[in-house]
Amino acid sequence: MIKSLEESPIYRIANPRSIAFFGASNNFNRMGSIMLSSMEELGYEGPVYPVHPSEKVVRGKKAYPSVMDLPEIPDLAIIVLPTEIVAQTLEECGKKGIRRAIVISGGFRESGPEGAEREKELKAVADRYGIRFLGPNCLGVANPHIKLNPTPIPAEGPPGFVGLASQSGSFITQMFNYLHRHGMGFSTALSVGNEANLDIVDCLEYLAACPNTKVIAMYIEGITRGRQFMETARAVVPHKPIVALYVGGSETGGKAGLSHTGSLSGPDEVYDGLFKQCGIIRARTLTELFDFCLALGTLPKPRGNRVAIQTHSGGPGAAAADSCGRAGLVLPPLTKETEKKLKAVIPRTASIANPVDMTFSKSPMDDFYSIPEILLEDDNIDMLLVYFLSPMIFIERNLKNKGVPPEKIQEKGKRSMDKLVDLFYEVAGKQDKPVVGYTYRSLQERLVRGLIERGVPIYQDPERAARSMAAVLSYHRFRERALRKPDNIPRQPVNVLPQERGKTTS
Amino acid sequence: MIKSLEESPIYRIANPRSIAFFGASNNFNRMGSIMLSSMEELGYEGPVYPVHPSEKVVRGKKAYPSVMDLPEIPDLAIIVLPTEIVAQTLEECGKKGIRRAIVISGGFRESGPEGAEREKELKAVADRYGIRFLGPNCLGVANPHIKLNPTPIPAEGPPGFVGLASQSGSFITQMFNYLHRHGMGFSTALSVGNEANLDIVDCLEYLAACPNTKVIAMYIEGITRGRQFMETARAVVPHKPIVALYVGGSETGGKAGLSHTGSLSGPDEVYDGLFKQCGIIRARTLTELFDFCLALGTLPKPRGNRVAIQTHSGGPGAAAADSCGRAGLVLPPLTKETEKKLKAVIPRTASIANPVDMTFSKSPMDDFYSIPEILLEDDNIDMLLVYFLSPMIFIERNLKNKGVPPEKIQEKGKRSMDKLVDLFYEVAGKQDKPVVGYTYRSLQERLVRGLIERGVPIYQDPERAARSMAAVLSYHRFRERALRKPDNIPRQPVNVLPQERGKTTS
Repeated sequence: MIKSLEESPIYRIANPRSIAFFGASNNFNRMGSIMLSSMEELGYEGPVYPVHPSEKVVRGKKAYPSVMDLPEIPDLAIIVLPTEIVAQTLEECGKKGIRRAIVISGGFRESGPEGAEREKELKAVADRYGIRFLGPNCLGVANPHIKLNPTPIPAEGPPGFVGLASQSGSFITQMFNYLHRHGMGFSTALSVGNEANLDIVDCLEYLAACPNTKVIAMYIEGITRGRQFMETARAVVPHKPIVALYVGGSETGGKAGLSHTGSLSGPDEVYDGLFKQCGIIRARTLTELFDFCLALGTLPKPRGNRVAIQTHSGGPGAAAADSCGRAGLVLPPLTKETEKKLKAVIPRTASIANPVDMTFSKSPMDDFYSIPEILLEDDNIDMLLVYFLSPMIFIERNLKNKGVPPEKIQEKGKRSMDKLVDLFYEVAGKQDKPVVGYTYRSLQERLVRGLIERGVPIYQDPERAARSMAAVLSYHRFRERALRKPDNIPRQPVNVLPQERGKTTS
Repeated sequence: MIKSLEESPIYRIANPRSIAFFGASNNFNRMGSIMLSSMEELGYEGPVYPVHPSEKVVRGKKAYPSVMDLPEIPDLAIIVLPTEIVAQTLEECGKKGIRRAIVISGGFRESGPEGAEREKELKAVADRYGIRFLGPNCLGVANPHIKLNPTPIPAEGPPGFVGLASQSGSFITQMFNYLHRHGMGFSTALSVGNEANLDIVDCLEYLAACPNTKVIAMYIEGITRGRQFMETARAVVPHKPIVALYVGGSETGGKAGLSHTGSLSGPDEVYDGLFKQCGIIRARTLTELFDFCLALGTLPKPRGNRVAIQTHSGGPGAAAADSCGRAGLVLPPLTKETEKKLKAVIPRTASIANPVDMTFSKSPMDDFYSIPEILLEDDNIDMLLVYFLSPMIFIERNLKNKGVPPEKIQEKGKRSMDKLVDLFYEVAGKQDKPVVGYTYRSLQERLVRGLIERGVPIYQDPERAARSMAAVLSYHRFRERALRKPDNIPRQPVNVLPQERGKTTS
């Protein structure tokens, strides 16, 4: 097992100081050209050397006819070439002294016996030169923290805290937009492809040691180094949460075309057991994978499973209570003291049971400060779940009614929303208890967006919120059991950013 | 049971030709004023008569000191007054000759013994004058087809096909934005509140007969007229699908503060059995309630449970296959003929197993026409599930690379997207088989939005797509069994719009 981040074979793949790029040209329809253009768009600052047999300049950069001609030995080679010339290119990289590579090209083991032979050859070349590589048949790496994105789709949003190790390339490049919309970003995302040299266990070790990674997400279709995976995961989990989505697997397992109902239930149970033993939180869907990451990356440790629900509408409150129940969370009665304090700030029609249903919003200031403050102070309560319906529409209407001109309405509305965000953010941090929101409106509306960007996780359904809260609880319970028996935990370097409140991205 | 729509006591509540409005004033902070302003915003065209003891003009409309002074007998009274004067106001309405009302005001049965007494009084008044009313403690009705929205939140988007009967008022007013974003709209939404006079069974009967309603959604916290509910539902389901969300219930059941894990499992099972007997599709969450409505309102009857998945990315394809398996759908192998036809249009690296994974997009024209066409022609396939990743980003980048100026890029990009929408919409209608999409990007991007507006249901996770497809299948299977034994189906007038393809809203 690695002793430091720098010792990981992935370190210079995810943090290269310079890159040799094979397969980009001035023909923009080629995958290599598309990937190079993503990299330019994000603004990677190290030297990038396109290697091309005939073109002198590729996308404005000086190109080299051979890797041997490069003015230095780059840290990393990215290879997006036709299958037939990949091994030979890797060999040349080896001769030049390059020791890390990403092989994007497909046509290897996944394509049949002939491809499998080619993959063996590729491995032999790598072994001969001591080259460690991701792939083939992968999308490599995205490390937004150093503006590195040599994947087909442009990066969006700031860098974040989710470290992804994926057996599908799609998820490292097609999720930038998704994560950004939901208030997250990648710390580093790694696609392993056929795992001919580096595999998902290497990625796990790297992400455990990566200081930008607060939570590790894994997309798994099948693990070959089972024992090493377990050992590593068991060493990591007490220090950093791991969430995994295991999918029966049509991509790597060759099981496409089978019904997933029967034949795969065996292996699914095996993975379920494996995850449980390691304390890995299992997600059922991709949505849930990132839902859990959001909660695990932003929330403090809950002291227990007792939730207060704050709402101004009965139905959404009842739906949330239902979801909490299903997720194993409980809604205890509030203390007499809390009831007394609440009575001063809630409408006459309100219910001070739990859920606390204000029935309507008497004062946004109370909704966004006094009421959550009172609920968080209650010793019966470990976590707070709040229903958000932005008061923007009411404020806008009210101002319109007062004859305020349209451009001023926008401006005043925004200021009100930002003030509520400040208030709620402040109160949410007072008790070091998890505070989670849900809404049925868009996450992009100013108020909710503002809270998300401050690191308050808000979900588009109470079911997703409740399941994510339960995932955090389950993680910390496993963690504490594991830490009580420290001898059982193998040593593994784990590096986590100091938990800065409210920074979902950095 | 009612014999026609007009015979329903709800008919003139949902379709009033004129309205007496109690509780609106020039004080904009009152609930009545807010509700009247929503109504104005949507543009209800019949006369609205504000009744106010002192103000002569309310929000620009002539106001009347008493209902007795109104120039006609309005079809409907909407009452948003302090609890204490509600019964007396209803009595005056009765004297005037008004026979339909909505009582928004709270403070009745839900607030304790004193309120229960008040509710009895209210019922007695109604009985004396033959008044039928929704509420108290409700939000009444929204019928966007006649631009009627006397609920607190402004309506959004065009009218639609979802008929909602809800024991939470929030869901009839807070879901306009949600439904519009997901490509739906209400036909009519009804909030029943305390059900002192009209109840959820009356609403069900009305929505069954309502010609704008293609699918009935129900939010249920507790049913009192159990037998009538069952009889009505069993009569409706063979003609029109019903989806229900049952929630343990903190709003009406007074069960707030209890953990939902143990004590409510009994009743939950009772409802589960009841729904199954009637062929009502049960949703687990609000998200699922409307997910199922979208599929049931847009898709033709599937011939069976055999799905083809079309993707250009392995991971999303595998995740969808996994979701289909969990939902009881199967992925059969494609016929030899299909494989032959596919080979002509897919890239060399593609997999022609099922999921069909193109690995990358060779030609948008093939992705959006030839490939779905071939898959839909396959006799082994009953439904098609397609992964969407809008090619807009690639088209924009390509044009930028060619030096096309930014304003032209936007314009050309939009035209390309609209053309792909046309192509896909055409091919999706060719075989009368359900076609469903999923994406991890926003539903508001031009391509996906275009498809949604044409009536192609697209979900933000394959799990939601697969579960919705399974719900449609389950509905039609129940329906066919029921229709084979027609003697078992009580007669109930059911009125459905002729199924116009591609109209999610009308």
